[in-house]
Amino acid sequence: MSVVETVTLFTPESPLHLDGGGALGHVQVAFETWGTLNEARDNAVFIAHALTGDSHAADGDGRRGWWDTMVGPGRPVDTDRFYVICPNLLGGCRGTTGPASTNPATGASYGLDFPLLSIRDFVTVHRALVQHLGIDRLLAVVGGSLGGMQALQWALDAPDEVANAVVIAASSRLTAQNIAFSAVARSAILRDPEFAAGQYAEGSGPRDGLAIARMMAHITYLSEEAMAEKFGRRIQDADEPRRQFGIDFEVESYLEHQGTTFLDRFDALSYLYLTRALDYFDPFAEPSALDAATAEPTPTRFLVMSFDSDWRFGTEHSRRITARLNRAGLPTSFREISAPHGHDSFLMDVPDYLATVRAFLDRAEQEVTGAS
Amino acid sequence: MSVVETVTLFTPESPLHLDGGGALGHVQVAFETWGTLNEARDNAVFIAHALTGDSHAADGDGRRGWWDTMVGPGRPVDTDRFYVICPNLLGGCRGTTGPASTNPATGASYGLDFPLLSIRDFVTVHRALVQHLGIDRLLAVVGGSLGGMQALQWALDAPDEVANAVVIAASSRLTAQNIAFSAVARSAILRDPEFAAGQYAEGSGPRDGLAIARMMAHITYLSEEAMAEKFGRRIQDADEPRRQFGIDFEVESYLEHQGTTFLDRFDALSYLYLTRALDYFDPFAEPSALDAATAEPTPTRFLVMSFDSDWRFGTEHSRRITARLNRAGLPTSFREISAPHGHDSFLMDVPDYLATVRAFLDRAEQEVTGAS
Repeated sequence: MSVVETVTLFTPESPLHLDGGGALGHVQVAFETWGTLNEARDNAVFIAHALTGDSHAADGDGRRGWWDTMVGPGRPVDTDRFYVICPNLLGGCRGTTGPASTNPATGASYGLDFPLLSIRDFVTVHRALVQHLGIDRLLAVVGGSLGGMQALQWALDAPDEVANAVVIAASSRLTAQNIAFSAVARSAILRDPEFAAGQYAEGSGPRDGLAIARMMAHITYLSEEAMAEKFGRRIQDADEPRRQFGIDFEVESYLEHQGTTFLDRFDALSYLYLTRALDYFDPFAEPSALDAATAEPTPTRFLVMSFDSDWRFGTEHSRRITARLNRAGLPTSFREISAPHGHDSFLMDVPDYLATVRAFLDRAEQEVTGAS
Repeated sequence: MSVVETVTLFTPESPLHLDGGGALGHVQVAFETWGTLNEARDNAVFIAHALTGDSHAADGDGRRGWWDTMVGPGRPVDTDRFYVICPNLLGGCRGTTGPASTNPATGASYGLDFPLLSIRDFVTVHRALVQHLGIDRLLAVVGGSLGGMQALQWALDAPDEVANAVVIAASSRLTAQNIAFSAVARSAILRDPEFAAGQYAEGSGPRDGLAIARMMAHITYLSEEAMAEKFGRRIQDADEPRRQFGIDFEVESYLEHQGTTFLDRFDALSYLYLTRALDYFDPFAEPSALDAATAEPTPTRFLVMSFDSDWRFGTEHSRRITARLNRAGLPTSFREISAPHGHDSFLMDVPDYLATVRAFLDRAEQEVTGAS
């Protein structure tokens, strides 16, 4: 169903110039596509993944997509009608160049020699990919959490390339508490003796630190109510508490499972680089942030969404984004969705939420095709 | 000002029988007292400390007390009028027998051979200490967080010994999210290779794991608003971000400092044992929980308090305690205090809060002495 490809987008002759200075002379990007690009090349929808996602947004290859509620045949991002593109992020560890990749200058992995990245850098690579695919203007960029921040940055930097941006459960500026959680997660990785200054062998590395980081993050992805509903104080596989330090409560088993399974699919260095990009993200602090977007004759249309039980990037974050866009006169709709799952709601089957995205994309398609 | 003492309360001939079975044949308790026990022996106020506290509640020895807003001359717990007692907890690491103490049977530290403890076990030791001091009935037991749980358990188990109980920012039953945070903290300690199955030498041990546990806990002690107010997105000692993995934001510096200074005063094994006692605490689940309290001719008077910005043990926890006590017909007042500091509010100078405790204790004193 999906086409999986890897393409080299930047080379020593044509390097990736980074937002914070410096350059990367070799960047390959792993991406997947679903559906067919139409002749007018105006039915492309770009999916930007969140912190620990990858290119496999929708089902394919016999594997479930991480956003199969949103992307697929008949889904809001309908792969029967849209040409859907999802790459792995720059700095990631699922096929796109990142800190665990081989540094051509040394023949060893980059480790901490990899440059610090910004969300604009992710977008620069996305833009090169879309150009490579021969697409001038995307029907939409859609993303949740870190993915939503990419959609926002893209629409600010190159509004001519993005007809519509769907910014879900995102933030334009992390709070001290947001940064604090990421700082402790990174500290767990950096303090792990197996981190070895980032020069660990493939398959080894700071497994304990990364598991701790993931377990802690999972607490912030669920609302307190969702955790209470899902686990309460129930004991794992028993009626009576065992009274031990090992796993006893169901919630402990859940976290341990999340921490352990994560190790098989994610790299600790990527975790450091991607979370740090989040911390520094603050697009509206740039005085010229909105210049391109407001000068665009056919401005990007924004849909900003939040979930009422999200305590990681809750409604106040989405309201701030909406207020800045509205104040600049950009066409922006905001919806707060009631859903109990916390931040993770953006990945869940929440009918009101999915219907809102569907309606927004249907209208976007009609505007482009002239269909009614 | 304060008297610092250590007393052996349980011996092989007269061991401490534990709530979960088993016994400890040697328990010494470090405690401090302030003020003077009157002739009627009815002016004693017992302070139960929280997770990482110690016996040094009020100023003395040239060191500030951890609860100097609450306890001291002229304070709500007035050391000029009350005889104030504060011991280090069983299982602690500040002079009272705990898992890092020497196991007389082996000559080495107990480590993980130390038995799992319950909050009732803490109270059993407190009761022995009060008996040792020749006090039949305390004017009050006062505690915040884990200290409040001890006050509650004591008043349920031995209401004749507790005329008044002040239960602040406590819980009678941790939520899944509460347990989750503690589980990840313990996992950071247990996964640290220096933990060495609990048989680390004094002064060494799982320093990284314990620092991570403490940093994470500190996030939960402050409200999101307090963190935003205190740190925002300010950069430590600079105007412009350095853009690095090391400390850059002020909140990172704060957490690192909290994690590091904690290592000099706290033991990782105590952290494991005390947090686990919290997880299992669920006194009202015992069918006979309220039997003693309701049978008592002069029932304990309760003051239950919460803070509106506390997201660790917020108002819903205190309301649950209050509802259970009220339903049993026990004299219980509840106050939610508005304070911005989150869970840490119970340690802070919050006038409305301190005045409420003062009024409650003043009335308690008047009832005992007959003064008006």
